[in-house]
Amino acid sequence: MKKEVSILRPSNDGARYELTSPTAMPKAGGFLWNQKMMIQITCRGYATAQFMQPEPAKYAYAPNIEAKTFMQPEPNYYAHHPGRFVYIKDLESGQLFSAPYEPVRASADRFVFSVGKTDVAWAVEHMGIRVEMVMGLPTHDVAELWTIKVTNISGRPRKISVTPYFPIGYMSWMNQSAEWNEDLVGVIASCVTPYQKATDYFKNKYLKDKTYFLCETPPDSWDANQQAFEGEGGLQNPSALQQPRLSCTDARYETPTAAVQYRVALNATEEREYRFIFGPAYDEAEVRTMRSRYLSKEAFVRTADDYAAYMARGRGCLRIETPDKELDNFVNNWLPRQVYYHGDVNRLTTDPQTRNYLQDNMGMNYIKPEVSRKAFITALSQQEASGAMPDGILLAEGAELKYINQIPHTDHCVWLPLTLDVYLSETGDYGLLKERVRTENGDNFTVFERLSRAMDFLLKLRDERGLSYIAQGDWCDPMNMVGYKGKGVSGWLTIATALALNLWAGVCEHEGATELAKHFRAGADDCNAAANKQLWEGDWFARGITDDNVIFGIKKDPEGRIWLNPQSFAILGGAASKEQIAKMLPQIDAQLDTPYGVVMFAPPFTKMREDIGRVTQKAIGSAENAAVYNHASVFYIHSLYHLGNQQDRAFRHLRQLIPGPSEADYRQRGQLPIFLPNYYRGGWREFPRTAGRSSQLFNTGTVSWAYRCVIEGLCGLRGEPDGLVVRPQLPSGWNAIKVTREFRGATFHLDVRRADVQDVVVSVGDKTLPQPKITDFKADETYKVSVLVPQ
Amino acid sequence: MKKEVSILRPSNDGARYELTSPTAMPKAGGFLWNQKMMIQITCRGYATAQFMQPEPAKYAYAPNIEAKTFMQPEPNYYAHHPGRFVYIKDLESGQLFSAPYEPVRASADRFVFSVGKTDVAWAVEHMGIRVEMVMGLPTHDVAELWTIKVTNISGRPRKISVTPYFPIGYMSWMNQSAEWNEDLVGVIASCVTPYQKATDYFKNKYLKDKTYFLCETPPDSWDANQQAFEGEGGLQNPSALQQPRLSCTDARYETPTAAVQYRVALNATEEREYRFIFGPAYDEAEVRTMRSRYLSKEAFVRTADDYAAYMARGRGCLRIETPDKELDNFVNNWLPRQVYYHGDVNRLTTDPQTRNYLQDNMGMNYIKPEVSRKAFITALSQQEASGAMPDGILLAEGAELKYINQIPHTDHCVWLPLTLDVYLSETGDYGLLKERVRTENGDNFTVFERLSRAMDFLLKLRDERGLSYIAQGDWCDPMNMVGYKGKGVSGWLTIATALALNLWAGVCEHEGATELAKHFRAGADDCNAAANKQLWEGDWFARGITDDNVIFGIKKDPEGRIWLNPQSFAILGGAASKEQIAKMLPQIDAQLDTPYGVVMFAPPFTKMREDIGRVTQKAIGSAENAAVYNHASVFYIHSLYHLGNQQDRAFRHLRQLIPGPSEADYRQRGQLPIFLPNYYRGGWREFPRTAGRSSQLFNTGTVSWAYRCVIEGLCGLRGEPDGLVVRPQLPSGWNAIKVTREFRGATFHLDVRRADVQDVVVSVGDKTLPQPKITDFKADETYKVSVLVPQ
Repeated sequence: MKKEVSILRPSNDGARYELTSPTAMPKAGGFLWNQKMMIQITCRGYATAQFMQPEPAKYAYAPNIEAKTFMQPEPNYYAHHPGRFVYIKDLESGQLFSAPYEPVRASADRFVFSVGKTDVAWAVEHMGIRVEMVMGLPTHDVAELWTIKVTNISGRPRKISVTPYFPIGYMSWMNQSAEWNEDLVGVIASCVTPYQKATDYFKNKYLKDKTYFLCETPPDSWDANQQAFEGEGGLQNPSALQQPRLSCTDARYETPTAAVQYRVALNATEEREYRFIFGPAYDEAEVRTMRSRYLSKEAFVRTADDYAAYMARGRGCLRIETPDKELDNFVNNWLPRQVYYHGDVNRLTTDPQTRNYLQDNMGMNYIKPEVSRKAFITALSQQEASGAMPDGILLAEGAELKYINQIPHTDHCVWLPLTLDVYLSETGDYGLLKERVRTENGDNFTVFERLSRAMDFLLKLRDERGLSYIAQGDWCDPMNMVGYKGKGVSGWLTIATALALNLWAGVCEHEGATELAKHFRAGADDCNAAANKQLWEGDWFARGITDDNVIFGIKKDPEGRIWLNPQSFAILGGAASKEQIAKMLPQIDAQLDTPYGVVMFAPPFTKMREDIGRVTQKAIGSAENAAVYNHASVFYIHSLYHLGNQQDRAFRHLRQLIPGPSEADYRQRGQLPIFLPNYYRGGWREFPRTAGRSSQLFNTGTVSWAYRCVIEGLCGLRGEPDGLVVRPQLPSGWNAIKVTREFRGATFHLDVRRADVQDVVVSVGDKTLPQPKITDFKADETYKVSVLVPQ
Repeated sequence: MKKEVSILRPSNDGARYELTSPTAMPKAGGFLWNQKMMIQITCRGYATAQFMQPEPAKYAYAPNIEAKTFMQPEPNYYAHHPGRFVYIKDLESGQLFSAPYEPVRASADRFVFSVGKTDVAWAVEHMGIRVEMVMGLPTHDVAELWTIKVTNISGRPRKISVTPYFPIGYMSWMNQSAEWNEDLVGVIASCVTPYQKATDYFKNKYLKDKTYFLCETPPDSWDANQQAFEGEGGLQNPSALQQPRLSCTDARYETPTAAVQYRVALNATEEREYRFIFGPAYDEAEVRTMRSRYLSKEAFVRTADDYAAYMARGRGCLRIETPDKELDNFVNNWLPRQVYYHGDVNRLTTDPQTRNYLQDNMGMNYIKPEVSRKAFITALSQQEASGAMPDGILLAEGAELKYINQIPHTDHCVWLPLTLDVYLSETGDYGLLKERVRTENGDNFTVFERLSRAMDFLLKLRDERGLSYIAQGDWCDPMNMVGYKGKGVSGWLTIATALALNLWAGVCEHEGATELAKHFRAGADDCNAAANKQLWEGDWFARGITDDNVIFGIKKDPEGRIWLNPQSFAILGGAASKEQIAKMLPQIDAQLDTPYGVVMFAPPFTKMREDIGRVTQKAIGSAENAAVYNHASVFYIHSLYHLGNQQDRAFRHLRQLIPGPSEADYRQRGQLPIFLPNYYRGGWREFPRTAGRSSQLFNTGTVSWAYRCVIEGLCGLRGEPDGLVVRPQLPSGWNAIKVTREFRGATFHLDVRRADVQDVVVSVGDKTLPQPKITDFKADETYKVSVLVPQ
């Protein structure tokens, strides 16, 4: 297998991945973030960065007036896409290349793109010169910290020019300029965020409309003007690089850029190291502050340490050692990092969808439950008087519901008990339920009361058949025309409502609210009965019934015949009996399984179905339509682990979430195994060329559930009010794993192995427990746990 | 002079311009339109096209999700900007170039970019191959008709590939694909216009979401996938061109493109001619219709004839023959064409600003007065009950006020009498005044009554000092903070109101409404008196007084000290006495004149002045701030001709509107003399490198006034109710001109020359008229007129 993955090498601890080709997976990249910014950068040097002020904004722009939009899947790169590059020119031979790869695209002697959890780095060797580039971020500011090291590895003296080129792009139609600032030693680009209404002036007044690129070492020449730099040579051979020095041209209502040149003579083995910072600022005073705070070798080291500590706080509650090293790397390093990202910055929006916000914070329970607790209260503080949850949770002053959050969806309440479940099981903190939460409309209820109100809202939101209305969408955003006339219902939501009610009834029982528990259990039964009566069609549950009373997601549908979510939730929420499950699973295998995961539905739609909506015309051959939509896949995996006897099926699909480990799989997906994308392309039968391709979009509700599946399912380590249940579900090929689990402050080192036992046998130290649940433990203590599982 | 303009050659009749370098004026281009579409294409092959359905839409897209915005000045081009290209590869040597110039940017042996009034064409010779490209449009459909002819001029047999490459770009995040259609012989790209609200589905349902590129001759291979075509070679050397044939790859949620390849063996002098059509369609049936309607040699010829006839209907009412050939070309060919464009398609918007709509149709009076008449009624049919005019005129069902039309401006009524003035003088059709116009609010008034109501509204819209409120802007859109609190006033608008009232009083007098005339004259006097009392500051009129009672546009202002418009309108509307004018003109010369025209104000602002607004921070070094804003310049020129004794000053500034005739001037402005841009950059003293540069934006109210200045001012041929006044104002360097003027159906051939006369002497045939006004003439007749003007 080692040979097969030659283009991709994990470090020993899996905390870095090295990609040795810029062309094998051209869109593969890494991402770094802090609470104010995010940057995604590809192996070839293209970058997409945004920062919050408080709405997402840019400091390196496209070459045209780009639309403001939500984060899109499958980003498209093109010659002038924003990026970070350095040109190296041999001043004697005139030869030119650029690192990392774009824009010159020279075939390097050696190329390594190295993605760590706290930095992204390259080493590129060509023409006897090694270029090493490293990008880091500070923890609390918006800035990129770049180190560019150039080493002569040719063994003979060399004269070269080193030209970092950080294009700034089209900043604004109102006003844009850039110039060299001798005092700050860098290019300062300025713009005015465009506006027309007088009131917007005041909104925009304190935006960071400057972009700076500062050099620790003063360069020999510079360019602040994109066109002057490129000239007729274009990006592959910029005109300014054909001259003895850069043109030193400012930009005046012209596209700004930042290029600086160092002309150096290197002895046979000499190296030079340069440092730069790149980011947005309000004014020159702020640029000056950033310079003095960050732009030195010492500051870079200190900042990197600080940032590493920040990332370490997101390391999660689980370490595994299994026969599958790629999985270990992913679970120990990358999955909690992505969960942390979601919980830490809420996808860098000011109005996350309620469903996303709750699930992102569900994952955060495994990392920083105190953050999740607060988020839960924040969400509930925006509950409507009816008990409904709004479509998005506003996180900043002046934030507004945007994009999809302006479309009415009916499922948001479902996610309250589903996500609270993890908070309670991780912390045992039932005290949260007693917290009072006041909303803007003046309501003042406890968390417990609010959840009950939300559940009653769900119960009410049903038609005379007992099925849940869908309005313009449920979990599936683009299913926007099933119920827009007010009659259509969602099969999934009906079934998911039962799950939510059952979960909440369990909490009510724990709290001694027996009557309420009965009420909600009865409601759940009612939903499940309705689903069975109206939606069970012989081998699986239908997806819904339209405004015009057409049931869909059924056998006779040529497209969209079977949908994954209703089946997963029917397993979780009790709608499906054992007999029904036994019918459903083979249908899922036969109709939805692909080499890249389980697709959300099949067969894909090839044209609009006006009684279903946007999903039927959306991105045919990609995205929701015919996609391995990982968020849906992971619910299914969760439901399989829930069954307790489907560990092989569950593990196979869990493993499909992660690209690799074969080179063929990496290449087809086009992504490093450092995050879970929101989807892989489906259309396996229809579009084999592109099937499996990663969306490259790392914003996804998938990750919380994936982490949960590993912790609760594969490792079987789920909290209950009185302790930690231990019920690992190893796939049949495995005989043993080792797990370290942090739980309520204690640390458990578990040694899990197969043995001749009937049920799981757990021993803490030398004491064998009466049942597989650890109840007697203390925070800050470490425990050795032996776990025997049946063969 | 001939030598100096070597990069630019007019045809003998001036109806074509040939540019012989793709690098001297890289953004220079031409534009074609019909009532449904517009395309602007540069000498290097980059193109911006839009079509109406009814809102502006695209069929060739940027490589990213571009913002929908109004037409912007100074477009920025970049490697993957949409364009139309053809690659030529020598299959024996492997050498490659592209026509017209992008993307390969080879230095051709011969390059000619040839812009006609009805087509845009290139001839490029390189590697012994001549490539001729011609683009035309049909009159009634949205499509580009391309002829690409390849000729072997090497004198020896050749084997080459010919690869037209029409990138389609990023169509939609919802769904995009492209494939080869064997039956239609072309690439068909499909997308779904993105939406999220269910209701938008129905709005978008019949949009033309397909882009087609059809070949008359079936090619040997094709590519529909941008990435597959380019590969690692990039646009300068596409990977697909390094193979024996194109990759024949479709696009599945990938960026579509259209590239087709012909492999040909040419004997020593052989040529091949190919035809293609490129455009949007709703479905394949529509593509099929377009193919059969247009894609043949005969259809191309027929369509070109038809389109030429369509353009000929916009030839205007004037032909001149003067000592200035560049001016003749511009006035005889290009200026009326641009006026026609404005009047014919209303800038391809569905909600033109009221001010623009009226002025664009003012120009149309010289071309098709019946169109102007209708537009005038359309505008008045949207008059508000108060007499106010709305900020924009809605021209299509479902159209909405967008962009700047959502910001309240107070000047729209002013333009009614100013523009009606030309209709009446051109046609003598005072019958229009009696037409009844009903509005949606139920009002039913005659045109005459509506104008009077609009004038009364202007009179009312003034403060206790008699000055006109400005709200969030007057003619100067971005002067949005002078009066946003409700108190600030516009000096210009006060003075312009007087002009409007005086003009309207004249019409009232003609109609025998003496009392009304007195009322409006008194109102005008009142405005002018207020302006003189509050705004005359010794040498010029101030621009306004802010909400906080700060007068601005005055001597002590370090920035924005003097504004052009108040002075021009004071001359026209009677606010300025002879003595005042004598003080104003030298100040304008000293402070506002530049080599590229008269700037709108000076000195430019260097930072935001919060009591004035956006104009003070907008595009410093460009655009409104410190720009030769031609629309303002041309009002000034009009006012100089109005004086009757300023012909040299007037002509000098009129001539500055047109780029050239020196090569230095062309190069600095970067534009062919085929249209007037909305501005040239000012900042002559502050930013000499970029001063004079054209905005390249041909949407501008300038053109109607420029045509009017030539007709009424330079040629002195203005209609009055009873005939055509003849009072040419030749610049002092000229001794004679010849003019052909069409007027109310008659044609006048005027021979104008200087003579020893005291006043203008006009003879028709051999009959000398008692005064310089031709009153006795008939439609459809032609008259020879001799005009003697004082020396």
